[in-house]
Amino acid sequence: MTSPKGFQAGGLHCGLKKTQRRDLGLLYCEVPAAAAAVYTLNVFQAAPLKVTRESLGAGGRLQALVVNSGNANACTGVQGEADARAMRQAVAAMLGIAEPLVGVASTGVIGELLPMEKVQRGINGLSAVLSPAGGNDFCEAILTTDLIQKSICVQVETADGPVRIAGAAKGSGMIHPNMATMLGFITSDAKVDSEGLQSLLSAVTDSTFNMITVDGDTSTNDMVVAMASGLSGSAELKPGHPDWQAFRGAFEYVAEYLAKAIARDGEGATKLVEVQVAGAVDEATARAIAKTVVGSSLVKTACFGADANWGRIVAAVGRSGQPVNPDTVDVSIGDYLVLQQSRPVPFDDPAATEYLKGHEVTLFINLHMGEARATAWGCDLTYEYVRINAAYRT
Amino acid sequence: MTSPKGFQAGGLHCGLKKTQRRDLGLLYCEVPAAAAAVYTLNVFQAAPLKVTRESLGAGGRLQALVVNSGNANACTGVQGEADARAMRQAVAAMLGIAEPLVGVASTGVIGELLPMEKVQRGINGLSAVLSPAGGNDFCEAILTTDLIQKSICVQVETADGPVRIAGAAKGSGMIHPNMATMLGFITSDAKVDSEGLQSLLSAVTDSTFNMITVDGDTSTNDMVVAMASGLSGSAELKPGHPDWQAFRGAFEYVAEYLAKAIARDGEGATKLVEVQVAGAVDEATARAIAKTVVGSSLVKTACFGADANWGRIVAAVGRSGQPVNPDTVDVSIGDYLVLQQSRPVPFDDPAATEYLKGHEVTLFINLHMGEARATAWGCDLTYEYVRINAAYRT
Repeated sequence: MTSPKGFQAGGLHCGLKKTQRRDLGLLYCEVPAAAAAVYTLNVFQAAPLKVTRESLGAGGRLQALVVNSGNANACTGVQGEADARAMRQAVAAMLGIAEPLVGVASTGVIGELLPMEKVQRGINGLSAVLSPAGGNDFCEAILTTDLIQKSICVQVETADGPVRIAGAAKGSGMIHPNMATMLGFITSDAKVDSEGLQSLLSAVTDSTFNMITVDGDTSTNDMVVAMASGLSGSAELKPGHPDWQAFRGAFEYVAEYLAKAIARDGEGATKLVEVQVAGAVDEATARAIAKTVVGSSLVKTACFGADANWGRIVAAVGRSGQPVNPDTVDVSIGDYLVLQQSRPVPFDDPAATEYLKGHEVTLFINLHMGEARATAWGCDLTYEYVRINAAYRT
Repeated sequence: MTSPKGFQAGGLHCGLKKTQRRDLGLLYCEVPAAAAAVYTLNVFQAAPLKVTRESLGAGGRLQALVVNSGNANACTGVQGEADARAMRQAVAAMLGIAEPLVGVASTGVIGELLPMEKVQRGINGLSAVLSPAGGNDFCEAILTTDLIQKSICVQVETADGPVRIAGAAKGSGMIHPNMATMLGFITSDAKVDSEGLQSLLSAVTDSTFNMITVDGDTSTNDMVVAMASGLSGSAELKPGHPDWQAFRGAFEYVAEYLAKAIARDGEGATKLVEVQVAGAVDEATARAIAKTVVGSSLVKTACFGADANWGRIVAAVGRSGQPVNPDTVDVSIGDYLVLQQSRPVPFDDPAATEYLKGHEVTLFINLHMGEARATAWGCDLTYEYVRINAAYRT
């Protein structure tokens, strides 16, 4: 997160999590960065999202982002909103910057008030841990049921030299982003304006974060924030600039990497499941079908059990509510063609089972109705998913 | 199933299931019965549904229904359709009735051809087991992963004496009916015409079978068939007749009983979960929200773990895509009010946990936006669900 020029980060344990894992993180930019964000469409938007939206609305720039895990500060009413504002104020005061340059994000249990004394003490301690090497601590501080940290940095060569884009994300359960996503943070030292960054983030979110699902449940706290410091020394990048496509491609690569990392680390998951749909009448159709299949509990359990039960894939395609010709569908499980023109094809079942035992599984569906395609990512449904979620609060 | 006058049934094991459980059933009426059916909206409709639709289309009457379990005869192409037709023909020949008086239903694995020699031999054997006392054997023959048989009979007093309505259903996984449902069979000795029976069945299905979900997956084989022999001696019942409301009420009671029985016996379920939504702007909204909540994997695992984690209920309401005011929602878990006007209410958490450990759990949601209400039924998500579906074919 701190590889792009100008960024520092840090994290510490302030007492929101019962374990000693870090639960409060700060991302800081030496200058006010051009910023953009996308938010959950769940009608119960959590308090920190309202506050971040307000900050961004003031001038399209952010210089700091404070994030806590262990408590979502959602469905907490007037007090919750006051608490999110107090977090923003405390961070602004600690850093000596204006409040509208600070964003707030929270993740964890819904419906409990934040223990603000612990949070305040934690924020005071953040200045001591903030550093250019603090990216890992920040990444730990945003995790809940996640098993692994999810971060990446890529570099794009431009006419004026290299530009860097880094990203971090958390998310393991209540993952079914709708026009927005779980917590995601993308930093860059490219020079881009807020409008360009916002339209790029919105477009890329649709084909990356919005194409993953772990359990079909859309969180109240989903948010992705992008910040660009402009300190790379590059010229301003915008659509039409010769380097824009390369920058856009790298930005999308970062978002897709993080989205897949969230799916792979879905609660209880043993494998990443990718569903590629081709031959759809339009992209919206392809996306809807890909998400329906990757989200099907029966497809997910079949992947867990390494059972090449393609009937479940077909049933999910058929119930998607999308235009599908029941006579022209092809399905492949990895390299194994199992259905052609909607007719079963004899295939090597033991070999397909072996393939399904791997840590990455790809299912291909061709509808033969048009040219549009889409890819969605998810994971298998396991005993461990049930265990985690049958005892989440306790 | 055979309590209404004129009906006989039977079932036997013909070899479609690996165990010795019955897998072929026959329902027979002494006279051609007024009949009606609703079918799955999955675009991959199984072959037997096409054949049954054809039979019903010919004259609105059925005299026999043959049902097999262990093989869905879905995604089986031209051969599958020929096999379903061959089943219809064999039953018609065995009973000496016209083919269009015979319906066909199948349930089980998708994408495998029926072993027709076994099926033909089984059909030949059905005449020997058909009897007025064969309802139980029929009910066993339609089960797959179901643990219990689901059947009921009620009696309605009319001016001309009693009328009986009986029903049987199967369904445990791939349960998320959409305008239709899993296999359901309703018999009656009331005198009703096919049109009246069809409109009654369609309306009742919307508030009963279509309001259950086990796993969000809509089957290729869902179908409910109703048959009325007219042998009760009652006058013809139709809307406007003084006894129509009582008949309609009893019919709905049977459908709701069967729908709840399917949810309660959902794959791996330890409890029935009922979600009541009130205060919605219209009935479609209430239904959509109730189904979203009862189908949420996180709500389902919380019910399994007896965790009064109401944040998951609220998150599901908020992602339903329906009109919801985020400031006016009440939620109760059984008798325990946990959210009022979208604010957390202190509640007796240990007592709520105790309540959630029961075999029937009801969640109440009031949106305070209108007068419409709806109820949906589902079950918890358990280790056993994962076990069953990770190894279904093997």
